Amino acid sequence: MTRVLLTGFEPFDGAALNPSWEVARLVAEQPPAGMEVTPVRLSCVFGRAAEELRTAVRGSDPDVVLCLGQATGRPDVGVERIAVNVDDARIPDNAGRQPVDRPVVPGGPAAYFAALPVKACVAAVREAGLPASLSHSAGTFVCNHVFYALMHLIATERPPTRGGFVHLPALPEQVLDRAQPSLPAATAAHAVRALLTASTRPTDLRTPEGTAH
Amino acid sequence: MTRVLLTGFEPFDGAALNPSWEVARLVAEQPPAGMEVTPVRLSCVFGRAAEELRTAVRGSDPDVVLCLGQATGRPDVGVERIAVNVDDARIPDNAGRQPVDRPVVPGGPAAYFAALPVKACVAAVREAGLPASLSHSAGTFVCNHVFYALMHLIATERPPTRGGFVHLPALPEQVLDRAQPSLPAATAAHAVRALLTASTRPTDLRTPEGTAH
Amino acid sequence: MTRVLLTGFEPFDGAALNPSWEVARLVAEQPPAGMEVTPVRLSCVFGRAAEELRTAVRGSDPDVVLCLGQATGRPDVGVERIAVNVDDARIPDNAGRQPVDRPVVPGGPAAYFAALPVKACVAAVREAGLPASLSHSAGTFVCNHVFYALMHLIATERPPTRGGFVHLPALPEQVLDRAQPSLPAATAAHAVRALLTASTRPTDLRTPEGTAH
Amino acid sequence: MTRVLLTGFEPFDGAALNPSWEVARLVAEQPPAGMEVTPVRLSCVFGRAAEELRTAVRGSDPDVVLCLGQATGRPDVGVERIAVNVDDARIPDNAGRQPVDRPVVPGGPAAYFAALPVKACVAAVREAGLPASLSHSAGTFVCNHVFYALMHLIATERPPTRGGFVHLPALPEQVLDRAQPSLPAATAAHAVRALLTASTRPTDLRTPEGTAH
Repeated sequence: MTRVLLTGFEPFDGAALNPSWEVARLVAEQPPAGMEVTPVRLSCVFGRAAEELRTAVRGSDPDVVLCLGQATGRPDVGVERIAVNVDDARIPDNAGRQPVDRPVVPGGPAAYFAALPVKACVAAVREAGLPASLSHSAGTFVCNHVFYALMHLIATERPPTRGGFVHLPALPEQVLDRAQPSLPAATAAHAVRALLTASTRPTDLRTPEGTAH
Repeated sequence: MTRVLLTGFEPFDGAALNPSWEVARLVAEQPPAGMEVTPVRLSCVFGRAAEELRTAVRGSDPDVVLCLGQATGRPDVGVERIAVNVDDARIPDNAGRQPVDRPVVPGGPAAYFAALPVKACVAAVREAGLPASLSHSAGTFVCNHVFYALMHLIATERPPTRGGFVHLPALPEQVLDRAQPSLPAATAAHAVRALLTASTRPTDLRTPEGTAH
Repeated sequence: MTRVLLTGFEPFDGAALNPSWEVARLVAEQPPAGMEVTPVRLSCVFGRAAEELRTAVRGSDPDVVLCLGQATGRPDVGVERIAVNVDDARIPDNAGRQPVDRPVVPGGPAAYFAALPVKACVAAVREAGLPASLSHSAGTFVCNHVFYALMHLIATERPPTRGGFVHLPALPEQVLDRAQPSLPAATAAHAVRALLTASTRPTDLRTPEGTAH
Repeated sequence: MTRVLLTGFEPFDGAALNPSWEVARLVAEQPPAGMEVTPVRLSCVFGRAAEELRTAVRGSDPDVVLCLGQATGRPDVGVERIAVNVDDARIPDNAGRQPVDRPVVPGGPAAYFAALPVKACVAAVREAGLPASLSHSAGTFVCNHVFYALMHLIATERPPTRGGFVHLPALPEQVLDRAQPSLPAATAAHAVRALLTASTRPTDLRTPEGTAH
């Protein structure tokens, strides 16, 4: 049995829902074959979210840690390739904090690559009939903050653990009149299940998924 | 019992599916309360599609005619407000025809407004939890062609009939690696059911749904 | 000498500039060969703008009337093909008026086509090295209002007059931090000069410039 | 006198022009006050471009190295914040090479931050009346390759040198009928001059320019 820790965020910026948490719950209720999924809801707060994540990882000793986040405006499931060591918030987080140009981990490297076979993950979602892409920036808000904190934890304390971050489109009910892409939670959960199954592959695929700029 | 004629198109431009026909079938299988829905699949061919539509309307004597079409790139359910009297095809249709700057109906008016309470229809989709908007152009390909032909038929032969056109986003399986918005067929069908229920309202809402340009 | 009436709008929605008026002035200062260009600045007010336009047309007896408007978010010079008989304002105009679902001209036809060789106009801008496209909706705010009023005036009082509407991207200084496309006023003026030269062609081109939806 | 090395790329992917080289030449012809600008045209070839850059840097001993690249689809001047150690090409470069998932510098760190006051650079462009933004991904093609190679060279051989990468929108003549944003070369050159003037500031601004995802 593969132990998976699957995190989502609480709603932020005045929203009532966050697709990342809705999807984490659905996947935990019906996990992929051979996987045991523990869902954890993180605060949308710099520092606190990373602390909650570290506590959960140390407590549950997972084989795979996948963090989910919301990416309003994106049309597909975005597998993040790289976490950067900077917090730069355009809006305050749920505790009113708005760090600008501060490192996630003082003294840490500029960036970490995801510890996932990211291209196999993208391919697995597409094979499940759902749109996915590789992303080269997770932004500089709490999502990237948690992603970087996770990769730092894995690099310094738990090298064999698989870990990464996936951005999900908004839920349809979040963009009723906003002309933004969306995917229903059940659809996104189906994609995340396929992705988790690929997350333990020993090697990645070598398919071009880069961007020109 | 309200009699509804619901049309979708066959796939075009090399695609394997067309969301409009997938959704028309789903809605016909589970129609809204008090409605009897006859699904008709139209050819994606200038002229022929309009002829198939006229035959179906005359044969089934519907109270409401709703034509569905595919709008790859759009993120939401788009209720079309106006049909224009011009064919201007960027690509050949399924019979290889590519009319440029030809009227749908020679001598017909420049445009017809939809014979639907379009704003109530938009509102009904949103109340069902799904994103919708009012659109002021159905393009100049076979979708607009059929829409104009429908409105001309209603204006000249069947004034009391309700009629209009709705564009649907691509299906997820159509845009696996294309960074385009999508909605699953079942989700879009749920939206169309809500919309049909509003289509027979005697008056429309007066809410601003216009565009600046 | 061809007499051209070229209109632009005053700024609206809190902006300091409107590219349409900046460009109208630049073109009038340096008109295309063989053309005399009278610039007129219209109020961004439903009703009043149409009245100002009618007064200017009757007073200057032009061969060509071209109205310019601002289309923030569009990347290129957009030649409008069709004006629709509806006002539907999302925001108040400069006099605080916000009509919803009212005809521009009660009893007028649903739409008018532009009285311009629109495809030759698009081609002329591109030949001048600048991006252009044909647009099938001028929206439902004051731009479309003026466009429809112009076409109604020409249809009912001045059939031989050429007339149409062109949307311009925002100015760079309007979108400093907004991630929106823009074109400098001098660049847009260069495009409008090329377009005006094509506006008097006796026949249009027959090139596909339609849209799928 | 501040010595600036300003690079642009040769055209690629079948294009006739590359805005980065057009702009580099214009800026070198009319440099900002107090600056001496040496323009260098780089091949759009993995490996070779980095070698050409290293040769130019070692030969001209610059105070500031700014590399320019083309970003078709972007609407504004994009100051890149971070270079990543991966080549992942969707299309072949000008020598037919298409590396996938290879490091720019084997054994190098996952990423380098730009050695520029990036927020002061963004602010300087906006103060000059032109749109700019901070970007958190320079892609994974030759642009990012050169950017990473530059930052590695500076980190390992020339720590006091300022260095960074800026993406420019397409030129208008490149997107005549493609519905993409563009900026004329002279306009972009004006922006780059303002940016260069800010590039030697001893400290950066602390303004939020991050992204949510």
